Amino acid sequence: MPAERTVTHTVPVAAARRRRLRADQARALADLLRHQILAGGYPGGVLPLEGDLAADYGAGRNTVRQALDLLRGEQLVERRPGVGTVVVCEKYPHGLDRLQGLAETLNEHGRVTNEVRTVGPVRAPAPVAGRLGLPEHTDVLYIERLRRLNGLPLSLDLTYVPMDIGAGLLGCDLENTDVFRLLEQLTGQPLGHAEITLEAVNADAHSAAVLQAPRGAAVLMLERLTHLGDGRPVDLEFIRFRGDRITMSGLLRRSL
Amino acid sequence: MPAERTVTHTVPVAAARRRRLRADQARALADLLRHQILAGGYPGGVLPLEGDLAADYGAGRNTVRQALDLLRGEQLVERRPGVGTVVVCEKYPHGLDRLQGLAETLNEHGRVTNEVRTVGPVRAPAPVAGRLGLPEHTDVLYIERLRRLNGLPLSLDLTYVPMDIGAGLLGCDLENTDVFRLLEQLTGQPLGHAEITLEAVNADAHSAAVLQAPRGAAVLMLERLTHLGDGRPVDLEFIRFRGDRITMSGLLRRSL
Repeated sequence: MPAERTVTHTVPVAAARRRRLRADQARALADLLRHQILAGGYPGGVLPLEGDLAADYGAGRNTVRQALDLLRGEQLVERRPGVGTVVVCEKYPHGLDRLQGLAETLNEHGRVTNEVRTVGPVRAPAPVAGRLGLPEHTDVLYIERLRRLNGLPLSLDLTYVPMDIGAGLLGCDLENTDVFRLLEQLTGQPLGHAEITLEAVNADAHSAAVLQAPRGAAVLMLERLTHLGDGRPVDLEFIRFRGDRITMSGLLRRSL
Repeated sequence: MPAERTVTHTVPVAAARRRRLRADQARALADLLRHQILAGGYPGGVLPLEGDLAADYGAGRNTVRQALDLLRGEQLVERRPGVGTVVVCEKYPHGLDRLQGLAETLNEHGRVTNEVRTVGPVRAPAPVAGRLGLPEHTDVLYIERLRRLNGLPLSLDLTYVPMDIGAGLLGCDLENTDVFRLLEQLTGQPLGHAEITLEAVNADAHSAAVLQAPRGAAVLMLERLTHLGDGRPVDLEFIRFRGDRITMSGLLRRSL
């Protein structure tokens, strides 16, 4: 009975296609809601009811539910009985337009404190010496900090500074002050520019533990080589930001 | 026997501290090696022997092994019997300095092709209409593309374009051409600027499947609102880049 066989074959295929289509629609909707959430678009941090979201976005109720599931999976929202879906993320904007220290860039959001896990001279391996413009095997100051905003872990920063400047950092209040600010104070000149590279990586077990994030959590990895105003490279950093706590924003132009 | 008790207590604590210290050192070393790997610093894509790395970086052999484990965990390197540790990542630089389409920015690395998963008009939800400067519930063109470089999935892009311009895109070769280039052709003017936001997120199951990445894989999420030279917003995009295939690089200045 070929007709029947066609039917039994067609139904699962159509169902699979519907599921795929709904997953695609849920992702698109989740992206729009995610923007509203991060832009503070929901007064009081409470999202509209599912039915209202469905109407507002021209989506089915199941698609809305699946989109909210995606946002819950990212720990951006939570469902609270009797309240609805509420924003629970603490995600802060970090500018990509201007070279700034963390305390500077987040000062309106709270207090940045740094747990100095390691500080001291190390012999610079060739790639570090090279990038800081130093002879190979010179000592550099190595600093490892767990940085918190309002007490919550935000990033793990590994920093290399040439020793002639780094020695001065040893006497400074690294717990409460951006290295950027200290470098400007110690050298008496403003910072100039920095080359940066951004990547998304899954946190290894140990880094995740330090950042108090789940193993495999997405981390925004920033590598930054900062130069003084006179061009001298003075600060090589490897920064792991918790992906759920930072967004980077900036402006790109078509012509340079 | 307090002395004995002290000893049995001290040994695990000291061992735990050593393990932690080694994990910290391995992370710092892995970050340095990662830079060399991504910068193409290893001729032929083969890393130096463990003993040479230990000498070059002033690290213990166990620390070197643990650092290489971290890089293997990220699929940046692999161990090949009889060869050593080889670079296996295919990670490409995407500029953060200039507004460019994917094919433009990666043209030296190969051919970008786009699988158009969806294209057609949708009623713009309020936040989309608002950001594109359109009245609420106007139709916009929605495009969903899986973008590949040399055949390998690179990003999943969701795009919204005002219909007066979008209608023209329907007849274009979206498979092989950047939307940016088509927008410039259709409007007869260059693009101007774009506001961007970057985040690191863990891929949900469905997005991971589309990108052929493991579930939970770190994704670099780019939201971008692009304006024409005359300032009109014409292209709202939500892009998920596979974290293991893209780095974003740019230059920041201290003063604007």
